[in-house]
Amino acid sequence: MDFAATKALFDLPKGVIYLDGNSLGPLPRATPARVARTLSEEWGAALITAWNSAGWMAQPRALGDRIGRLIGAEPGSVVVGDTLSIKVYQALAAALDMRPGRRKILSDSGNFPTDLYMAEGLIGALGKGHELLTPPPEEVADHIDDDLAVLMLTEVDYRTGRRHDMAALTRAAHAAGALVIWDLAHSAGALEVDLAGCGADFAAGCTYKYLNAGPGAPAFIYVAPHLADAARPALSGWMGHEAPFAFDPDYRPGPGIERMRVGTPPVIQMAALEAALDIWDGVDMAALRARSIALSEHFIAGVEAAAPMLALASPRDPARRGSQVSFRFEHGYAAMQALIARGVIGDFRAPDIMRFGIAPLYIDEDDIDRAVAEIGTVMGEKLWDRAAFRARAAVT
Amino acid sequence: MDFAATKALFDLPKGVIYLDGNSLGPLPRATPARVARTLSEEWGAALITAWNSAGWMAQPRALGDRIGRLIGAEPGSVVVGDTLSIKVYQALAAALDMRPGRRKILSDSGNFPTDLYMAEGLIGALGKGHELLTPPPEEVADHIDDDLAVLMLTEVDYRTGRRHDMAALTRAAHAAGALVIWDLAHSAGALEVDLAGCGADFAAGCTYKYLNAGPGAPAFIYVAPHLADAARPALSGWMGHEAPFAFDPDYRPGPGIERMRVGTPPVIQMAALEAALDIWDGVDMAALRARSIALSEHFIAGVEAAAPMLALASPRDPARRGSQVSFRFEHGYAAMQALIARGVIGDFRAPDIMRFGIAPLYIDEDDIDRAVAEIGTVMGEKLWDRAAFRARAAVT
Repeated sequence: MDFAATKALFDLPKGVIYLDGNSLGPLPRATPARVARTLSEEWGAALITAWNSAGWMAQPRALGDRIGRLIGAEPGSVVVGDTLSIKVYQALAAALDMRPGRRKILSDSGNFPTDLYMAEGLIGALGKGHELLTPPPEEVADHIDDDLAVLMLTEVDYRTGRRHDMAALTRAAHAAGALVIWDLAHSAGALEVDLAGCGADFAAGCTYKYLNAGPGAPAFIYVAPHLADAARPALSGWMGHEAPFAFDPDYRPGPGIERMRVGTPPVIQMAALEAALDIWDGVDMAALRARSIALSEHFIAGVEAAAPMLALASPRDPARRGSQVSFRFEHGYAAMQALIARGVIGDFRAPDIMRFGIAPLYIDEDDIDRAVAEIGTVMGEKLWDRAAFRARAAVT
Repeated sequence: MDFAATKALFDLPKGVIYLDGNSLGPLPRATPARVARTLSEEWGAALITAWNSAGWMAQPRALGDRIGRLIGAEPGSVVVGDTLSIKVYQALAAALDMRPGRRKILSDSGNFPTDLYMAEGLIGALGKGHELLTPPPEEVADHIDDDLAVLMLTEVDYRTGRRHDMAALTRAAHAAGALVIWDLAHSAGALEVDLAGCGADFAAGCTYKYLNAGPGAPAFIYVAPHLADAARPALSGWMGHEAPFAFDPDYRPGPGIERMRVGTPPVIQMAALEAALDIWDGVDMAALRARSIALSEHFIAGVEAAAPMLALASPRDPARRGSQVSFRFEHGYAAMQALIARGVIGDFRAPDIMRFGIAPLYIDEDDIDRAVAEIGTVMGEKLWDRAAFRARAAVT
């Protein structure tokens, strides 16, 4: 499927150029009908029997496998459910349990806060003196040593789009005897990921960004097949039990990735995820990555020519970038508000980052050219200043 | 609103008498349009800005308050999200943290397994020697003593419908210095609950049973207002942070019940929950309870007359029952299959329980009479025997 064809599968508002799919992907045209079918034909008509007849119970694994293809995971190694925060917690709890003699958890200062918060919460609950280190991203490798229990990183930085070298860092952590967890929030559907090839131990991600499964869409978790049967689930819910409907008084973890299921899966959200993955099934990830880079390079060149006061915050080398481009600007918040008012939707991240997601499924060169022109206008005419004035006036 | 009016608000399949709303409530007629609006008008049209413009970010608290009215919770003490398993874990982790010197967790052998599993998982992760006791339900009170950290019970037994005395047990546990967690899975929307009046410390429940919010609908958690600011969140996700969008490196719990939020809320499922709660807003819980008891008494009398081989497994005293009626029968699985084939949908729970949920919102006396007649036919003509024969034939 070419990218003109995929763009036609999205229901984008007229006049909007949507460069915030790295926060929340847009609505696929097929999603409303797919969700309506789950509501009326499955839930409404089949009621409780739909858990089996409509395949709801099997969905978390089936959808997991379809995501798995996009991130280089082995079949049967990914399951869908809960939120990314919960999945990070599960992965970290299982990984720490596998390294009982070690106390160091290494992340970085650019990691998405909820990953760090969940680690803090787990450390506090365990009360075993684990320590969370968050050096600057470029210094992570220097902190890998024989005390390290778990290296826990987000591959692509949510602010700058900077990309870690997943293979090299995984190798280094393994050489030190540590386990590795990758957060793929800004990777899944954004670029080629090769979890199996890298030898990653655990991974987690969300499906509402580049995968376009909608607001509050479920997360996913990956456990390397050789570890899955040894992973002890801290969140040992009935859906991860070996026999959920035997109603045993004691927990016995299910085989492999099954044990990372917790409670009742979000059937309606999964219907939206299914519709979104129908698009992805036809996408070649190498072609997507090539197009992402081409569009990003075009965007950077355009913005730097049209608005020289914006300073590139993303790595200039495309190999070291995810599928977003960020610029620093002192009045970034107001500038982004002015841009949004003109139909170019990006995002602002404190203190000064203007962030633009480049999703080839529905963004093309014309969109980039129009976005660049609007950015040029907003910056050249200092529209951010008026926007800031209006914002101040509204507050006071 | 009378109950003929509420029944008209549900889209029940023709010819079906649905007595399994205690597993999965049926589809409200208004739900598909409400969900479609969230998909197309909110997500599709407003994209990322819908988090504020459509009120998504505020929904977990707003919906929590509407559920709160049904369970006697103080305004601002309930929040929606995740699954019941996760909410039980959060409550238990916070409660144990408040009783650091005590090691005993008391539940009962009739509790729903996932509550016990989550407790097991937490105990294992903590590694502090906590002990989980599960005596028979009627002996729980005998195990309350000064070692008790947390009493964790489900008010209404999922198999038999037996109801604990929430007020008395809470009082006894408090007198021993323990905290109390109530699982309201089979209580919310089933009977009058008075969390504030009972002085309950924590509670959790699901919304896909009597509340009719659909498959995989989110759970809710209650924390007593006087404890909420002291509860330490083990699952410290960004949505529970004091300022989620400040992206602080350190976790600072939000005020009160806010800290029990974890990750991104399930917006599409919440839209279905909102439509379901529109019905509940017009329901008087005392009237619902009176009707639940009248229908249940009518059902028991009818079944005992029509099918004397079924032995009542629920308490005979309606005050000690939730809103379900269960019978024991050796061939209960096959008998239930035969009943379902005739349009009367109940549920089977191993080893021998035939379970019938009595939901006054959409079940009336005619339904009860028809269900009783079908039960009489299935049992009188031993249709379970043929059904069992067919089931065996299908397996071999």
